[in-house]
Amino acid sequence: MPLPLILASASPSRRHLLHNSGLKFTAQPSGVDEEEVKQSLLAEQAGAREIATALAELKAVRVSARQPDALVIGADSTLICEGRLFDKPPTLADARQQLLALAGRTHELWSAVVVARDGVRLWHHAECGRLTMLPLREAVIDRYLRRAGQAVCGSVGAYQLEGLGVHLFSRIEGDFFTVLGLPLLPLLSFLANHGIGLEEAA
Amino acid sequence: MPLPLILASASPSRRHLLHNSGLKFTAQPSGVDEEEVKQSLLAEQAGAREIATALAELKAVRVSARQPDALVIGADSTLICEGRLFDKPPTLADARQQLLALAGRTHELWSAVVVARDGVRLWHHAECGRLTMLPLREAVIDRYLRRAGQAVCGSVGAYQLEGLGVHLFSRIEGDFFTVLGLPLLPLLSFLANHGIGLEEAA
Repeated sequence: MPLPLILASASPSRRHLLHNSGLKFTAQPSGVDEEEVKQSLLAEQAGAREIATALAELKAVRVSARQPDALVIGADSTLICEGRLFDKPPTLADARQQLLALAGRTHELWSAVVVARDGVRLWHHAECGRLTMLPLREAVIDRYLRRAGQAVCGSVGAYQLEGLGVHLFSRIEGDFFTVLGLPLLPLLSFLANHGIGLEEAA
Repeated sequence: MPLPLILASASPSRRHLLHNSGLKFTAQPSGVDEEEVKQSLLAEQAGAREIATALAELKAVRVSARQPDALVIGADSTLICEGRLFDKPPTLADARQQLLALAGRTHELWSAVVVARDGVRLWHHAECGRLTMLPLREAVIDRYLRRAGQAVCGSVGAYQLEGLGVHLFSRIEGDFFTVLGLPLLPLLSFLANHGIGLEEAA
């Protein structure tokens, strides 16, 4: 019997991606205070890749310690533009500032995924996509935010590429699953090697 | 007032992609006999890119002639692997043969999009993604087909990357919207220049 699979995340888009692949899993938020961890990593001069990986690991290990004998997936995404790290915008006003800062520029979106078992990291992977935003006028950003609404605050970039967010971009390079927050192909490959995949799902 | 927008397609995945972007449009199947056109293009030694573009144009122009004063979008995808063109598999048995032929290899998936008005092509764009399939055992293909079912016959590659199909791949390169059948970013850019976009949608 393959081990039960747990996604240590409350993110609807990651749950959606994993669900679409047909795998059976349950989702459990990790309860990790991401902000506190991120601040201490930043104080240590960690980069976007390191922060995403550290947070993904922390979430996976935290849930895994509570749930031994399961494979626990943790994931995190960070966004960096010209050396500046961006966070999920707390409010629509913050989202507006963020989009103004990203408009007309190329940013990197890093997504990391970690699998843990019995409280220990077994595997990890991180990669990034490069996204170039159109040189957006303020009026366009305002229309976008009026239509997209509060949901943009759930995304590190204040945009959702599965939805209205595509209008903001001139170019999206890199693996799309990674850009959506979960490097799915390497994760599925790791899981397949542990007997979890198409073959086992009912 | 921007022109009404029509998608000349019965494809659920293209409708889904365009719908998710928040644009207002209606969908009308073109009624083009794709198979006949494809055979005559093949007889003229047309390549994957030319065939996708010709079929996208034919669909757009056909619907546009019936619906003047609208912008009509036509799209088509073709798949080529080591010089061989693949079509939508008519049956699950054909899908099985196709997946056996693609397994362990890299193929190109071309997607073309054309916009027509008053029966004339205004704009077109074609690009391709490169997809590498895992070296799948027959038993894995059979399990995939049992789970995915008849829906695979609606796709030129006998797989749906939005669903179980991700399990078949080791690598997906290129724009994801293109791989899903509609190069969305260049299309949205063209439409924005014609006053159709975030700014006009209600």
